[in-house]
Amino acid sequence: MRVRPLGDRVVIKRIEVEETTKSGIVLPGSAKEKPQEAEVVAVGPGGMINGKEVVMEVKVGDRVLFSKYAGNEVKIDGIEYTILKQDEILAVLE
Amino acid sequence: MRVRPLGDRVVIKRIEVEETTKSGIVLPGSAKEKPQEAEVVAVGPGGMINGKEVVMEVKVGDRVLFSKYAGNEVKIDGIEYTILKQDEILAVLE
Amino acid sequence: MRVRPLGDRVVIKRIEVEETTKSGIVLPGSAKEKPQEAEVVAVGPGGMINGKEVVMEVKVGDRVLFSKYAGNEVKIDGIEYTILKQDEILAVLE
Amino acid sequence: MRVRPLGDRVVIKRIEVEETTKSGIVLPGSAKEKPQEAEVVAVGPGGMINGKEVVMEVKVGDRVLFSKYAGNEVKIDGIEYTILKQDEILAVLE
Amino acid sequence: MRVRPLGDRVVIKRIEVEETTKSGIVLPGSAKEKPQEAEVVAVGPGGMINGKEVVMEVKVGDRVLFSKYAGNEVKIDGIEYTILKQDEILAVLE
Amino acid sequence: MRVRPLGDRVVIKRIEVEETTKSGIVLPGSAKEKPQEAEVVAVGPGGMINGKEVVMEVKVGDRVLFSKYAGNEVKIDGIEYTILKQDEILAVLE
Amino acid sequence: MRVRPLGDRVVIKRIEVEETTKSGIVLPGSAKEKPQEAEVVAVGPGGMINGKEVVMEVKVGDRVLFSKYAGNEVKIDGIEYTILKQDEILAVLE
Repeated sequence: MRVRPLGDRVVIKRIEVEETTKSGIVLPGSAKEKPQEAEVVAVGPGGMINGKEVVMEVKVGDRVLFSKYAGNEVKIDGIEYTILKQDEILAVLE
Repeated sequence: MRVRPLGDRVVIKRIEVEETTKSGIVLPGSAKEKPQEAEVVAVGPGGMINGKEVVMEVKVGDRVLFSKYAGNEVKIDGIEYTILKQDEILAVLE
Repeated sequence: MRVRPLGDRVVIKRIEVEETTKSGIVLPGSAKEKPQEAEVVAVGPGGMINGKEVVMEVKVGDRVLFSKYAGNEVKIDGIEYTILKQDEILAVLE
Repeated sequence: MRVRPLGDRVVIKRIEVEETTKSGIVLPGSAKEKPQEAEVVAVGPGGMINGKEVVMEVKVGDRVLFSKYAGNEVKIDGIEYTILKQDEILAVLE
Repeated sequence: MRVRPLGDRVVIKRIEVEETTKSGIVLPGSAKEKPQEAEVVAVGPGGMINGKEVVMEVKVGDRVLFSKYAGNEVKIDGIEYTILKQDEILAVLE
Repeated sequence: MRVRPLGDRVVIKRIEVEETTKSGIVLPGSAKEKPQEAEVVAVGPGGMINGKEVVMEVKVGDRVLFSKYAGNEVKIDGIEYTILKQDEILAVLE
Repeated sequence: MRVRPLGDRVVIKRIEVEETTKSGIVLPGSAKEKPQEAEVVAVGPGGMINGKEVVMEVKVGDRVLFSKYAGNEVKIDGIEYTILKQDEILAVLE
C-alpha cells in the first residue's frame, strides 16, 4: 500500500539509533526517549496551503530532525509512521 | 437520505480493521483504539473558505488516514460517520 | 415575533428524533444526548464578515447537521432555538 | 449624560421579561437566568475596525438577542448597561 | 514629567465617584469595586499599528468608560494611571 | 561587549527609584515591586517584522514605561537588562 | 554530519560561561541556570515563511542571546544543539 500525504504534509519513519552509555552498556531504542531522527518516506505536493504558497523542501530519503511530539502517529501495514507538516521538520542531516 | 457537506468538509466512515496479536488472537475493532482509517463518503464543494480558496483533493471512495479525535461524529440513519475539514485528512492510501 | 439573524448567522430548531433501543424501548428525545439534527428557521444576509465575503449556502427549511455545543441557545416566545454561524453547520441532509 | 460607543461597539439595556411558570407563579426577572433580550441604546460609528470595514446593521431602539456573558457591564447614572461589539449581537427581533 | 504614549495607546486616570447607598451611607471610592470611568490624560499618535491604520478617536480631557482589568497600571510622580490601547476604551461620556 | 537587538526589539535597563514611605522610611529598589521605568540602551533596526513594516519610535537614552513581566531578562557582563519588542513599551517619559 | 536547518530556523550551541560568585567560588555551567548565550552553528535559507518574506540577519559564528526555553533541543553526533526560529533570537553580541 502506498501513502500519498495531502498538502504540505510529510510521512516520516523514526530511526532507532543504538546508544552506548558511559559505562559501556548498549541501550536499544526502546529503553530511551523517543528518537527525533527520521527518514522521509513520502512528501505531499505542497502548493496553496491556507492561502499561502508552500514549496516542499524535503524529498524522499532525506534524513531529518523533527520536533518531539510533532505530527500524528499512524500504523500502515503494521509499521509505525509519523505524518507531520513540513514546517514541523527542523533540519535535514547531510 | 443523502448528506451534502458544506464548504471544505468531508464525510468519512471509519474502517474497522481486524488485527491479529502476536499470540495469534484476533482483535475485533471494538477491542482496540479507534481506527484512523476511513472511506470518503461525501465531499463538500470547496471554494472560498474563510477568504481562502480551497481545492478539494479527495474524492468519494478514497481510503484516507485522519488525525485521531479530528472532526465531529454524527449518526445518519443509525450509522456513525465523522465530518471533518479536508485539512484534517492526513493522507490518501493507494 | 420574527427573528432576523445578523451577518453569517443562522437560526435553527433542533429536531427531536424518537429512537428505539435494541430491547425495543422507545426513547423520547429528552432521555438521550442532545440531537444534532435541526431545521433552518432563519438565515442572515451574509456579506462581508470580518473582512471576508461569506455566501449563505443554507436556506429556510433545510435539514442540517451541526456541531454539538455549537452556537448560542435562545428562547423566543417560549420556544428554544440555536443561533450559530453558518460555518458551524456541518452538512445538509437531502 | 449621553454615551457614545467607539468603533463597532453598541450599548444595550437588558429587558427583564416576567415569566409565568407552569404552576402559575410569576417569576420576576431577578429569580431567573440573566435575560438575553435587550434594547439598543446607542450605536458606534463603525468604519475601519482592526483594518476591516464594519457597517453597523443595528439601530437605536432595535430589540436584539445577544450572546450570554458577551460584552462589558457598566453603570451610567446608576443604570446598568452592556457594551458589546456588534458581532456579539446574534439577531434582531421584529 | 510628561508621558507620551506609543502607537494607539492612551493614558487615563480613573475617576473615583462617591456613591450613596440606599440606606444613605456615602461610600468613598476605596470601599467599592474599581471604577470604570476615567479621564483621558494623554493620547498616542496612532498610525500604522501591526500593519493596520488606527485613527485616534479620543482626545485629552474626554471622559471614557473602559473595560475593567484592561491595560497596565503605572505610577508616574506618585499618581496612578492606566495605559491601554484605544480599542479597550468602550465609550465616551458626553 | 555591545548588544545589537534583532528586528523590532529594544534593550532596556530598569531604573531603581528610591521611594519614601508615608512614615518617612526610604525603601531601596529591592524592597519594592519590580520597577516599570527603564532607560533604552539599544534599539533594533525595525523594518519588515512578520510581514509588517515597523518603524522604531524610541531611541537610546529614552526613559520609558513598560508592561510588567514583558520581555526577556538577560545578563550581559554581569549587568541585568530586559529585551522586549517595541510594542511592549507603553510610553516615553519626557 | 552536517545539519541544514529549514526555512527561518537557526542551529545554535549554548556557551557555558564560568561564573565567579561573590565569595570567590567558581561555578561551572552545570551548577547554574541554563545559559542564554550561544554560538550560531547553521542558518536556514529564509525566504517565504508562512507567506511572509524572512531575511536572515544572523550568520554562522555570531554570538547570540536567545529566549530561555525557546526552540527544540536535539543531539547530533552526541553533541547538544538548539534549533529555533530566527525570531526567537533576541540580540547579537559584538
